[in-house]
Order: sequence, then structure tokens, then C-alpha cells
Amino acid sequence: MKLYNHARSSASFRVRIALALKGLPYDYLPLHLARGEHLQPGLDALALERLVPVLELDDGQRLTQSMAIIEYLDETHPAPPLLPSDAVGRARVRALAQLIACDTHPLNNLRVLKYLVRSLKVDDEAKNAWYRHWVGLGLQAYERHLQQAPATYSHGHTPTLADCLLVPQIFNARRFGCDLSALPRTLAVFDACMQLPAFQQAQPSACPDFEP
Amino acid sequence: MKLYNHARSSASFRVRIALALKGLPYDYLPLHLARGEHLQPGLDALALERLVPVLELDDGQRLTQSMAIIEYLDETHPAPPLLPSDAVGRARVRALAQLIACDTHPLNNLRVLKYLVRSLKVDDEAKNAWYRHWVGLGLQAYERHLQQAPATYSHGHTPTLADCLLVPQIFNARRFGCDLSALPRTLAVFDACMQLPAFQQAQPSACPDFEP
Repeated sequence: MKLYNHARSSASFRVRIALALKGLPYDYLPLHLARGEHLQPGLDALALERLVPVLELDDGQRLTQSMAIIEYLDETHPAPPLLPSDAVGRARVRALAQLIACDTHPLNNLRVLKYLVRSLKVDDEAKNAWYRHWVGLGLQAYERHLQQAPATYSHGHTPTLADCLLVPQIFNARRFGCDLSALPRTLAVFDACMQLPAFQQAQPSACPDFEP
Repeated sequence: MKLYNHARSSASFRVRIALALKGLPYDYLPLHLARGEHLQPGLDALALERLVPVLELDDGQRLTQSMAIIEYLDETHPAPPLLPSDAVGRARVRALAQLIACDTHPLNNLRVLKYLVRSLKVDDEAKNAWYRHWVGLGLQAYERHLQQAPATYSHGHTPTLADCLLVPQIFNARRFGCDLSALPRTLAVFDACMQLPAFQQAQPSACPDFEP
């Protein structure tokens, strides 16, 4: 398998964690979005959505969207499982993942922040307030979920799809200097994840295309 | 089952379509977000995320996040299936759904448009340009996916999770007067869906709490 991705991309980071948790080898193909490298000819699946990550299978088929890719990996390489064995548990893990992937991260990724600055002429202070507003709403909701059913990880005592989404979001929030002190359970889960080699190996600073 | 939802909420509309495709009966519990009705005491799961829809199971457990709810319904009531039988097909359907749920809709929902107007003092013209920009990017990518593998519905010849997401997004785009003329395959799929009673029954104007 090949992973078109970028060290700093949160959605790429999610897939790298899943691949590492599963112990799956893959070719790391860095694409620098800010430089438009994802628009080069031949990268058709990339061109379809103009976003990373894209997972290319050994038969050349290309999969997009980080959560869909992780579910594919979980279905085709079931051990260790990234979703619980019961339907309600799976619904909770997917809901936690989507709380990050749908309600939090889309408002704060690079292309949105660029639009705020370039098209809406928003200044740095207002841009950062925007960032912190949406991250705060999302992570506070995540914290309430975790408080309701405290565990080692986001759901139970092994890492799941939800943790693949949470950890990159915390990296991102810290990079923007968000105050996370009201999120004790969420940070405890983050710390538990970062004890695991899979999360360590997948982090931006461990990627070949990382630029400090 | 009980569905806490709102006629105009796109995410609620997605779940209503899935329930109708499955032929599942449920209690319709309208909650008007703009009036803050989702914050009333006792609605704990709603309070966790402050968003609709929420599906309450017969044992009182509450599920959140529209895509997670639809996957739960598909797992617990398999006929008719809302995901293909092959792993790559499932990945494609989930990716199409997430293209709407992660890359398109979050930028254009009520709370974001309110933030633009109230906090960033964006005028109506710039707000509508913002709306059309993100809807355009998302639906153009959707169109490219459909052009690559044309079919009756978004994936194959029966409706799937992807169609549950696409149809409410098109309703929304039309409400904001977006030009959809460059999306022939997407509109053909939309029209095919709207021929089906399940999509008709689930649409906002067919809901008990609809206000024209």
C-alpha cells in the first residue's frame, strides 16, 4: 500500500496511527498541499477531492477520506480491532470520531483559515478566536462523552477509531495555543495514547517530510 | 425508537431517510435549535453535543452523529442494506458520505453562518459567497466521483448511506440559491432518489414541525 499524505495534515496523521496500530507496512508518499503538489498530473484520486490522505491499494485502487480509509483497514485487517464488538459501542466510537471529523476539524483546517484571512480579511486575533471557538466546542463535547464513561482510552481499554481522530486534534489545538485545562479526561486519554509506540511513530515530527 | 430532530436540520434529514428506507417506525420528537429547545433539562445526550439528531433506543440509550446512527441502523436492521457488500465499495460509499459530512456541510450550518454574521460582522453578500464557495468545492468533488463510476444512485443501483447525505445537501444548496448546473450526474442521482417514497417522506416539508 501507498499513503499519499503530509506530516502536518491531521487527516493523514489519523490514517498513519491506524496503519501503525495494525502493524501494516506502507510506502510514505509526501505531498505538500500548501505547495500544490497534490495537483500534479496522474494523481487522479487526489485530483477528485484535492485533499490528502489517499491510500493506494496494491491493485492501484485509491481510497479517500480518513475515516473511510480507517474503517477499510479495520475490515480487511481485523487485528487489533479499532471498533468495539457491540453495535451500540461501535455507534459511540463512530460518534466520537465524527465529533472531531465533522463538528471540529473542518472549521479549522488550512484552507478555511486561508479563506478567513484572504477573502474575509480577518485579522490574526479574530482568526485565532475562531479557531479556539470551534475547537473548544468540539473538545468540550468530547470531554462530556468521556466523563460519562471514563476508561483508559476514548472507549474502553484498547485504542479505537476515536483515538485515531482525537490525538491529531489535540496536537493541532496545542499548536494554536488553545487552553485545554478544562479537559482532564480528554488529556488523560491523549497521554495514554501517546505512551503507545504506534501513536509516537505516526506523529508529525516522526515523518520524513516534517519541517519544524 | 425516538428521533429528536428538526425538520430543517440536514443531519436530521439524513437519519429520517435511512429510517424510511429501512421501513422502521419511530416517534418524531421535534426540537427547535434556533429556540434553544435542545438545551432543556433531562435531554442529557443532546446536552452532550448540543446538536440534533439524537436517536433514542427502546432501552433509553441515546446515539448521536448522523452517520454513526445510520451505520447503527444498517447493522441492526440489515435489509435493505445501505452499504455495499465489498470492502472497497463500502470505503467508496463512506468516502462520498464524508465528503458531504466532513468537507462540505460543517462549513455551512446554522451555527457557523451565525458566527460569521455576529462575531466577524460579515455582510450578507460575503456570507452567501462563503456558503457557495464550500458547497461548490464539495459538490464538484462529488460530481467527479460520480463521473468516474456513473450509476442510478451515488453507488450502484440501490440507495446507500451516500445518498442519505447527498440529498439533504442538495436541498440546502438550492435553498441558498447555488448554481448546480455543472453537476449533471449529481442532480440525476438526486432526482432518482426523490422518485423514491422514502426520500419524499423524509423531506423537511413532510415533517410535522415544518415551517415554510
